[in-house]
This record gives sequence, structure tokens and C-alpha cells, in this order.
Amino acid sequence: MPAITATGKTNPGNFFEDFTLGRSLRHATPRTVSNGDVALYTALTGARFALQSSDEFARALGLDRAPIDDLLVFHIVFGKSVPDVSLNAVANLGYANGRFGAPVFAGDTITTVSEVIGLKENSNGKTGVVYVNSIGHNQRGEMVLDYVRWVMVNKRDAGALAPEPSVPDLPVAVDRGALAVPDALDFSGYDETLAGSPARWEDYAPGERIDHQGGMTIEEAEHMMATRLYQNTAKVHFNQHAVDQSRFGKRIVYGGHIISIARAQSFNGLAGAGKLLAINGGRHVAPSFAGDTIYSWSEVLECCEIEGREDAGALRLRTLATKDKDCASFPDKDHEGKFDPAVVLEFDYWALMPRR
Amino acid sequence: MPAITATGKTNPGNFFEDFTLGRSLRHATPRTVSNGDVALYTALTGARFALQSSDEFARALGLDRAPIDDLLVFHIVFGKSVPDVSLNAVANLGYANGRFGAPVFAGDTITTVSEVIGLKENSNGKTGVVYVNSIGHNQRGEMVLDYVRWVMVNKRDAGALAPEPSVPDLPVAVDRGALAVPDALDFSGYDETLAGSPARWEDYAPGERIDHQGGMTIEEAEHMMATRLYQNTAKVHFNQHAVDQSRFGKRIVYGGHIISIARAQSFNGLAGAGKLLAINGGRHVAPSFAGDTIYSWSEVLECCEIEGREDAGALRLRTLATKDKDCASFPDKDHEGKFDPAVVLEFDYWALMPRR
Amino acid sequence: MPAITATGKTNPGNFFEDFTLGRSLRHATPRTVSNGDVALYTALTGARFALQSSDEFARALGLDRAPIDDLLVFHIVFGKSVPDVSLNAVANLGYANGRFGAPVFAGDTITTVSEVIGLKENSNGKTGVVYVNSIGHNQRGEMVLDYVRWVMVNKRDAGALAPEPSVPDLPVAVDRGALAVPDALDFSGYDETLAGSPARWEDYAPGERIDHQGGMTIEEAEHMMATRLYQNTAKVHFNQHAVDQSRFGKRIVYGGHIISIARAQSFNGLAGAGKLLAINGGRHVAPSFAGDTIYSWSEVLECCEIEGREDAGALRLRTLATKDKDCASFPDKDHEGKFDPAVVLEFDYWALMPRR
Repeated sequence: MPAITATGKTNPGNFFEDFTLGRSLRHATPRTVSNGDVALYTALTGARFALQSSDEFARALGLDRAPIDDLLVFHIVFGKSVPDVSLNAVANLGYANGRFGAPVFAGDTITTVSEVIGLKENSNGKTGVVYVNSIGHNQRGEMVLDYVRWVMVNKRDAGALAPEPSVPDLPVAVDRGALAVPDALDFSGYDETLAGSPARWEDYAPGERIDHQGGMTIEEAEHMMATRLYQNTAKVHFNQHAVDQSRFGKRIVYGGHIISIARAQSFNGLAGAGKLLAINGGRHVAPSFAGDTIYSWSEVLECCEIEGREDAGALRLRTLATKDKDCASFPDKDHEGKFDPAVVLEFDYWALMPRR
Repeated sequence: MPAITATGKTNPGNFFEDFTLGRSLRHATPRTVSNGDVALYTALTGARFALQSSDEFARALGLDRAPIDDLLVFHIVFGKSVPDVSLNAVANLGYANGRFGAPVFAGDTITTVSEVIGLKENSNGKTGVVYVNSIGHNQRGEMVLDYVRWVMVNKRDAGALAPEPSVPDLPVAVDRGALAVPDALDFSGYDETLAGSPARWEDYAPGERIDHQGGMTIEEAEHMMATRLYQNTAKVHFNQHAVDQSRFGKRIVYGGHIISIARAQSFNGLAGAGKLLAINGGRHVAPSFAGDTIYSWSEVLECCEIEGREDAGALRLRTLATKDKDCASFPDKDHEGKFDPAVVLEFDYWALMPRR
Repeated sequence: MPAITATGKTNPGNFFEDFTLGRSLRHATPRTVSNGDVALYTALTGARFALQSSDEFARALGLDRAPIDDLLVFHIVFGKSVPDVSLNAVANLGYANGRFGAPVFAGDTITTVSEVIGLKENSNGKTGVVYVNSIGHNQRGEMVLDYVRWVMVNKRDAGALAPEPSVPDLPVAVDRGALAVPDALDFSGYDETLAGSPARWEDYAPGERIDHQGGMTIEEAEHMMATRLYQNTAKVHFNQHAVDQSRFGKRIVYGGHIISIARAQSFNGLAGAGKLLAINGGRHVAPSFAGDTIYSWSEVLECCEIEGREDAGALRLRTLATKDKDCASFPDKDHEGKFDPAVVLEFDYWALMPRR
């Protein structure tokens, strides 16, 4: 693994038949994260949470210096798995049960291992869904991110026998007891002015909706730079010549870039929520392309205390991103579960929020 | 401060009535500057002054390593103030009395505080001009940049009472006695070949004009990346969907990006002038857009000795940038003070220049 | 040197008459390489060789941390020479005899010196070919890259007397005895899974051809950012206003950017070949422009043992890049030596490859 071509040296990516339940994939190209990655992440997404922006702010909260943005960690862990899992994927179907572990700092090196935890051939006999549990580790072997994703993958040979269907039982949301807050992090020295908002955990309530108000237009150079920065090699993002004849005729923006833009926009309304704890789920409702302008809004789903912590609580948030439509009206699903056509992303996550 | 919306969490920016004389604004999102920012600044602007490019060159002049480009410091200090001062500004009208203090190095963390020092409602009753004095500090509390800017801001309510007009008395240029040269900096070890030119302070004379000859075309991805790198959130730079219906129909390039391009081009003719001492004034004569090609030229306004320094003097320079017109003919104001239509920027500053 | 204009301060670049045999050019703007440069190089090219991506991977092979990609070193050494050698070059004709020396790490500072080693006026009397040997050094004076390039340069005055023609004797390929493998590098701890392929030196054979399969579309912002990152100032890459009236009507992509894209693509088939030893030759067969999609393939030319090394051997590779045509059919020269019209680059180099 990965599958090897006739010449034995190039990687054409895996097809549905190449995956077997329980198979472990140790992915290539470990990645040392640096301040250069941080600068690019800021320049490409507009991130401005104080915790990740300032070493001094992070020190006032007990860390040695600013941690790497959790979504940058997510993208790197994800990117490692692409050549083995989704090089030729038809679609990225979803994420679940993502828990962040040890904070990552500049200089740390990330590797990813994935295990196949589910397989289900589609009824058309041409594709199947593969579920993988990917775990990113730092150079000390500490888990930095553990999550599940599932992708639709082509079969190499439509006549190949279908495996026994096996779909993992995935939680709708990460259990609050599984949320890991770094021990060193202590919000007693939290400066809400530098953080950008006086709003604290106590100020949010389930059902509350927040329009993040920004609108950010995506350029080809930007989404490709971001995706290459994560060493994500999925072909649909980069090759205009090949997609000229495709259904869309355009390169598709890596869905994770949309997550990062929406998350950066969420500073306006959620400035204190710099630290992600978990990714409950994510769905790329529609593809995005260069030229699209991304807007976003968030709904507060739950507000939970964190055992043993008086200084911070957890917010479960659901962020939706739209294209070419502002979010003043909170575009969402209708009562039949059908999304407003402007929606491109639904992202459900736990964030840490300082308390009074 | 900043103003808070009905939901109490998002920042719509301040309106003219929200500013009162003497009000102090402590801005959010402190920023640790890194070598990643330096690399991006180089890639986006073409900067190539030796002092900022090489640790070894900087060491030969008495510093521990290469300082951060002064304009990158300017953009970061400026960017911090945008959400509170100019999120919805109608126009950035000018800069004055900018003095650089302690040099900034990778690893330093910058915060910005602004004070409202002037207010004047416009006769239309719909807008007003706000003058702020913004001061950037490093993590040791040392001033790194202290400058004034003024912006035209909408009133929230046209019926609101106008404040007593108060316009600060601003110098045409920073007094030469106020120019701060870092003590450690000593040009006795200056290598003019590595610096890129044999020209020294003695070789420049008031009235001299220098065509910097380069032409640099701006792309949307570039100006947006630069502006996000500075965590400047002004909406006009990013949202094509919203500006489709605007007067220009295009995103406006952050004026500071034009300053940086012109300054990078000025290497050709002013290679020794890597260190800025002060910003006397700046005016964005016309907006720039993606696709514009920027050229620039400089006029020497003054050549002053610096008290107590035999190794370097100060040059007061006036740099003009044009779009889509080269500067061989030094496009400028006519005798009635009207600028050549190609001019987009007039920037007046003090730079340090090595002596023989 | 460089030539100075009438005002004595701006650099118009050198013309053919300005070069004399044996003349030494010490280039301006020394450059400290940082992790910021590495991040941008990854984001702009898609590089993913493990040795350059991971400090831990590099440590397992005996280095202190990940070295800088050799082509990034090449571009910086090259970039330094542009203002003096090729600012107004008509064409970059070729490279030869390039040997990499001391590995470069973040924090090292690179300077370049060039010597004129050949001159030949063209029969049209308007241009001439200049051969320079450029040597990059680190801050300890260790050679990091020593190579020859030749460029076609305009004469300032068509009537100027032609110099005695002198063309250096350049090797078709760097002699294998001249290949320098860093002493510290030891592949006994090589992890082929993390490296991305089980293929080792023994698995390659002369004549073998590998289609790297990727296709990467270039954007204006990307090639200009890369070229500015290298502080390469050649005007044809940046100024759309000036080239509107040119033969192509478009900005030309710096040829080195194509080399880097093809090299990054070559990971797919040559994942173990992270370390370049030498550049034997390179030829930009046709110009590339924004919008072009680059594909590449490689041919194995030679497989040589390296004296005193059991852990690694050398592969001589010839990589061809095409635009808007995939490389499944290995587009090449025909029997008359004429290239397939899709070919834009032929690049001949030595790479280090781990042995079993």
C-alpha cells in the first residue's frame, strides 16, 4: 500500500477493491510545521484569533507560545492521507468524531496513520464508500488529531465482488467527556480586549444565531496554494486542463479551504473561541470555485461545562458557509432537510470559550 | 469599544458618532511577527534591501539579525486599528507624523493602541473625519511606530449632533530632531556592493528625481493575501460579490500594498535606504485595482545630517506611484496642484542613508 | 559593475559590451533563507519529498534538521545574479556543470559571485551570448552551488567591436566523481513508507521512463510570487503593461518555476530522490504562461554507484515538462531532434537515491 503501477513506481491512488476492513495505512511525507505555514495560513484565510496570533497572548494563558491553528493541523493530517485514500475520490462525503489532542507548535512534526473502519459498495456497482479513521501524531507520538472521514471511491473493475458491507457506528457529536483541554491552558489571565470581544461562555445560549458578516472572494492561486501547503494532492484542485472537459469545467476548491475561511470569519461573533476541541461533523453541501464569495453564520447548539474547569466552557457550534449570498437571513435547510442553494458547507464542532 | 450589535457579539465597526475626542482604543489580535511574514512580504512586494534580507548583513552593521521591514511593521500596526477605526470607512484620507522607534525582529509581538485626536463633521451632515494617533508597541512596551491617520467615516444617524470641530495641528514633515536611529546600527562596516549601489548620502541632492524603472502588475490573490497577512479586515478589499454593484465594480487594493510595491521598486536608485525613519505624509491619490501595473519614481526633498552620527544621514524622499504609465517623465502635479491622472500615490518619508 | 545610468544611481542592467572575459561580479542582496521561504516553496510548487519536509525524517538520516530544497537554493543563487547578468536578457539559453555543495538550512545566508567565462557575439551584430560561472556561498564561505549558465544579451551599441569569441568547454554531464554527498547523510535509517515509495536505487534502470501523472495549472500570482521570493527581478515576469505590446502579449513564467513544478511532480515515481547532487543541463524549450497546465515525465539516463557509499547511489535523470498535454505518451524529441510542440523544459540532473 499504496497500489503500485505497472512500472512499480508511481502511485495511481487506491480503488475501492484495494481497501479491506482493518487495513492500516501509514502515510508518506511527515511534515514539520513552521511559522512559515502560520504566515501563509493567515494570508490565505484571514485568521485572527489572538491565541494563535500572538506568543505573548498564549503565554498569558499558560502556553509557551502560540499554538498552531487547529484547522491547519487538521488540513495537514488530512493532506497526508489523500495519496492513499482519496487521490481519485469521487466525493468527500463527511467527517465525524474528530478530537484534537496535544496542541501543535512550530517545530513539531506531524505524521498520519489511517485505518479502514468501514466499506460499503454502492448499488450502481461502480463505486463504494470507504470509512477511514485517521490519526495524526507529533514527533513524541502524542495524538494531535483523531477523526473519521468517508469518501466515495471508484472501483477499478466493476465486476469485482463487493465486500461485506460494514458501516461504523459514528456519534452525531463528540461526547463532551471526550473533549481534551490542554492542561497548561488557563484563562484566568484572559484579556478580552486583546481577544477582540467581551463575550464569554456565559453569554452564549443554544439556538442563538450569529451572522459573521464578512464576505471573502476566492482566487485560483489562493486555494491552490493552501491545498499545496497541506501537501494535499487531490487532482481536481489543480489541473484546469483536465477539468476543462469535466462536469463543472473548473477546478474545485478543497473543501477544507472553505472551512478555514468560514472559521476565520467566525472571529466576528466568536472571537474568544480560538481553540477547537472537536469536529463533530462536516459536510460539503456543494462545491466551490474560484470567483465565489464565501459568507458564513453560526448557530449555537450546546453550551457545556467542562469537568474540572472553572475558567472555560465548551460551545457546540454549527457553522454554515454560503457562496454569493450574505448570511443576514441565516440560509439553512428547509423543513424537508433541503439546503438553501447558496449553502456550500455545514460544519459542526466544539470550541473552547473562556468563562467569567 | 468597539460598538457591539444587537446580539452583542459582532462588530459592525464604529460610526462617526462613536468617536469622542480623547477616546482610547486598545485594538484586538496582538501579532507575533515571524520569518514567515518576512518571506511573504518579499514574495508579495519584491522587497530586496540587504539590511532586511540578510542576517549577516545586519550583523555587520551592529544588529543581532535582520530587522523586519519598517513598512511591514506599519501595515501590522495599521491593520490592528481597522476593525475599530475604519472597518466601513469611506476613504483613508492621509497619514502624518509617523515615527519608527525600536526595530522589530522576528519573534516580537506587536499591539496597537489608538487615541482619537480630532473630529470634524462634514458639511453634508452624513460623514465626518476622524483623526487617530496610533501607537504600536512591542512585547517590552517599547514604541515601534507612532503615527497619525485620518479617515472619512459615515454617521450612523444623519440627525446626530455634530461634535465641536477639532483638527489636530500636524507637521508637514517629522522634525529631523525627532528621527530615531537605532543605537546599535553602525554603518562603518557597510558593504555597498552587497547593498546594491555605491551611492551614499553625499551623492543625493534636493530636487534630484529618480525613475525606479520597474513595473509590477497586481493580481487579486496578491493584494488580498498581503492585506490578510496584516490582519486588515476592511471589506472593500475582499468581497467581489458586494462590490459588483459598487461605483468601481471591483475590489480596491489596500493602499499600503501600493506603498510597499513602490518602496520595493525604489531599491533601484535608493538601494542604501533600507531603513525608514519616519513617514511624513501619504496620500492615496486614486484607487488601484487588480490588473494595474505600478511604476514609481522619487524626488529627493531634503538631505540632513543626523546629530551625533558620522556614519549616516537622513534623506527626505517623496515617492510617487503611477498605474499603467512608466515614470520616465516623472508624472506629478501640475502647477495648479492637480495630479497626472496616472498617479495613485504620493508618499513622503525620511530614510536613513549611509555616509562615506 | 553593474552599469550605472546617467544619474548614477539606477541599474539599467548590463549590455553585451559591459561583459569582459574574467570579470567578476559580486551580486547584491545577500539572503537569509528561512522556514518562511520553505513554506512558500511548498505552497507554490507542491514539493513533498520527505527529507525536505520533515526535521524528524532528516534526523533519522543523520542531519540536524530538514535541509532546504536544492532547487530553492538554485533559485536564490540564480536570482542574485539577475540584476547584473540578465536583467534585460533576450533569452536564458542553458545551464551546465551545476554542483551542489554544503546543504543549506534555515538561517543560512546565501551570497552569489559570478565570473564571465565566455563571450560570443551573434552574427546579427545586435546580440551576444554571455557565459557566467555563478557560485553561491553560505555565511561560512562554503560553496552551496557552483554552476554555469549562458544568456543572450543585447548590445547597447550595434557598432561596438565584437570581443574575441570564447566559448567555455562544458561537460555534457557532471562527472560522477564530482558529486558531493553530505558526509552526515546516512540512509541506513531510511523509512521508505514515510518517504512515499519502496523503490530504491536498485529498482531503476537506464532507459526507464516514468510518467509523473500530475497536472498543475499556473496562475499569474503564483509565478510572480515565486520569482519575487527568489528576488529575481527580470522584467518579463512582472510587467503586463509593458508586455501588452510584446510578441507574446503575456508575462513569461520564470523558467525555474517550471523546473520546480516538474521536480515536485516527480515525487510520483521518484519519491526517494529528495536530494539533488548536480544539474547537468537545462533548456527552456518554449516559454510558459499563466493558464498553462504543466505535466512531466522522467527518463533514467544512468545509475551509478557512489564511491565509498553503500547506502545510496546516484541516478542521472532527464525530466521533460509539457504544457496542456499529459505525459502518458512521453512527449520528446523526434529523430531529427525536434521537440514535441508541447514540451517546455528539458532538465538533466543527478539525484541521490537510497540503496537496499
